[in-house]
Amino acid sequence: MFELIQTDKETKARRGRLTTAHGVIKTPIFMPVGTQGTVKTLHPDDLLDLGSQIILGNTYHLNLRPGLDVIRAAKGLHQFSTWDKPILTDSGGFQVWSLAKLRKISEEGVQFANHLDGSKMMLSPETSMEIQATLGSDIAMLFDECPPYPCEEKYAADSLALTTRWAKRCKEWHEENASKIVPWMTEPSLLGESPMPQPRQLAFGIVQGSSYAELREQSAKELIEIGFDGYAVGGISVGEPEHEMIRAIDNAVPHLPVDKPRYAMGLGTPPQMLEMIARGVDMFDCVMPTRVARHGLAFTEDGPIHIKNKEFEFDQRPLTEHTHPSVARFSRSYIRHLWRAKEMLALRLLSFHNLHFYLRLMQQSREAIEAGTFAEFKDTFIARYNSHKEQ
Amino acid sequence: MFELIQTDKETKARRGRLTTAHGVIKTPIFMPVGTQGTVKTLHPDDLLDLGSQIILGNTYHLNLRPGLDVIRAAKGLHQFSTWDKPILTDSGGFQVWSLAKLRKISEEGVQFANHLDGSKMMLSPETSMEIQATLGSDIAMLFDECPPYPCEEKYAADSLALTTRWAKRCKEWHEENASKIVPWMTEPSLLGESPMPQPRQLAFGIVQGSSYAELREQSAKELIEIGFDGYAVGGISVGEPEHEMIRAIDNAVPHLPVDKPRYAMGLGTPPQMLEMIARGVDMFDCVMPTRVARHGLAFTEDGPIHIKNKEFEFDQRPLTEHTHPSVARFSRSYIRHLWRAKEMLALRLLSFHNLHFYLRLMQQSREAIEAGTFAEFKDTFIARYNSHKEQ
Ligand SMILES: [Zn+2]
Ligand SMILES: [Zn+2]
Repeated sequence: MFELIQTDKETKARRGRLTTAHGVIKTPIFMPVGTQGTVKTLHPDDLLDLGSQIILGNTYHLNLRPGLDVIRAAKGLHQFSTWDKPILTDSGGFQVWSLAKLRKISEEGVQFANHLDGSKMMLSPETSMEIQATLGSDIAMLFDECPPYPCEEKYAADSLALTTRWAKRCKEWHEENASKIVPWMTEPSLLGESPMPQPRQLAFGIVQGSSYAELREQSAKELIEIGFDGYAVGGISVGEPEHEMIRAIDNAVPHLPVDKPRYAMGLGTPPQMLEMIARGVDMFDCVMPTRVARHGLAFTEDGPIHIKNKEFEFDQRPLTEHTHPSVARFSRSYIRHLWRAKEMLALRLLSFHNLHFYLRLMQQSREAIEAGTFAEFKDTFIARYNSHKEQ
Repeated sequence: MFELIQTDKETKARRGRLTTAHGVIKTPIFMPVGTQGTVKTLHPDDLLDLGSQIILGNTYHLNLRPGLDVIRAAKGLHQFSTWDKPILTDSGGFQVWSLAKLRKISEEGVQFANHLDGSKMMLSPETSMEIQATLGSDIAMLFDECPPYPCEEKYAADSLALTTRWAKRCKEWHEENASKIVPWMTEPSLLGESPMPQPRQLAFGIVQGSSYAELREQSAKELIEIGFDGYAVGGISVGEPEHEMIRAIDNAVPHLPVDKPRYAMGLGTPPQMLEMIARGVDMFDCVMPTRVARHGLAFTEDGPIHIKNKEFEFDQRPLTEHTHPSVARFSRSYIRHLWRAKEMLALRLLSFHNLHFYLRLMQQSREAIEAGTFAEFKDTFIARYNSHKEQ
């Protein structure tokens, strides 16, 4: 299901192929985030145009709205959103942590008041996996507890032990029940003409352990013993400084099996992703490309630019030389005008451009690994990206 | 430049071909409104997908923002917005009337404080035509005074006399100066490989006269004597009841030459447009399809529906049976979810759908005129559209 094609000689960067029910993903890969069943401002055809191989869906949000009854009536998230390629769903744990109020963690799971109407809800290993099976994602994430940063060692150790116990329950529930619920497994008509390349929902574990090397190692080993289709590094991108984030990866990845995909959750900036690829990470997701677009920011090889800036008033150049033709046809001058006039097309073009930038960076990385030039590519990219840092 | 192809036997509906610098327009036609140099939420490629033959640009808005320096640097509105098909620009008169503060009308023109920063500006027949030449639209509208509704006969008569004097100044300025300013006339490199089908900017007159039949007739005759490439009926869609709007058309159209296009400004609902077509009107524009989309409304053959309504929660059908495939792939259930989740894709899909509905109605009208079945088509459409009126 995961085929390791090549490992870089100079770094730990890898190329691989991950086979899911809705298609094969070439790694390293960035996954655009479709929190509410849509990647903000974009049509599924735009995502195909961009060469998106897989997108994310959000368990916490989709369970609240539209709710599982609506998803079930549509026969799963693929059909509901008309996205016919792979989907990964997170477990909802991170959103319960960051959005919900009045959280109460117990052995059973997390009780909380949701952020929409404050009503009381429960997420547990079993309910999270059941929601993800109902959504019918290609890859489900286990339900974990995500400790805050900074975090005492005692808290991190207890949290990790709980995450491991929950991981076992997730795995058990998934093995027994997923095949009865995942819509494209229970509704053969949705399988299309040919059999699916991977006829079951995959499940990924999440390595926790905060900033403690021994705990990261312990977490990895305990999850591997339970056995998952891939392994994420969690508890990063929670407000820690960048060197801590990289240390978390350094502490976790060496203990993960080489023949399974590795996923750094919620990352990152373009240089951060290249640093992670160099450490053997295969998969990324981040709301940044679409979120910063809504603040007028466009990624370029020379670092991000703010399109609202006066300097672009008469600038007839496209956002970047290599952006997608669908955006490259517009001048910075025009996009700045759209931004100032509060036209939605501005957000759409910036979102499209930023995702193109991220996906292109992954393609360039795959090509550089293949050519044996990844280390050089990474260093050149990062040097140029950082040399123009905004004053 | 306008070729009348066919006139309906039963009604006064017509089919025609209007040749402009950027292409030929088949009439009757609806023109999507791109107030600020973009049709809200849509990419120019979407407009091509929809079969838009011509769009509108707004003189008042574009002159304020981005301003003419920016448009000039881009060599006109076509290049700035990357829309390579016909553009019609209004004169700004209507917006000065409805948006600006502290208007002061004189023989010279209108002085006003703009709605963005309140600074004092002047629009006159000459400046309006100069802005429209700088934008480089294919069709420029003369600068008129748009009387309010209701309006005393004395006011309407004086206003009309002023509009006629302004029409003369517009025509004079246009004949002397437009060819020196319109970017695709002064920059031969913009003309492309082959010569343009219509190598100059067209200018349309606007018939005023409020609700007074004699004034409408007088206005039409005075404008025809000056001589324009087409004639609009103005001063409608300003808050008057529907029968007054239709009476304004009835009072004006019979006095217009058959061999020139006729344009009903700022109209209307689908039934209203069919009524106008039956009265010999060729061209329409209206912000309604995109504006009501932003309120969650979708046009259907059975009248408009509000996508937010609970009844669509599980509705797996597309918005309408005949909508564009790019929207038809989504269920009402999904679009309702997007709407409730405040996702921009909802506004984009509803805008796209509503424009498709309007443009398809024009195509159906052209086909019905050609087949000699327009009267029947109109009556059937209106009966069905109105029979399901929301309670
Ligand atoms: Zn992020
Ligand atoms: Zn209107």
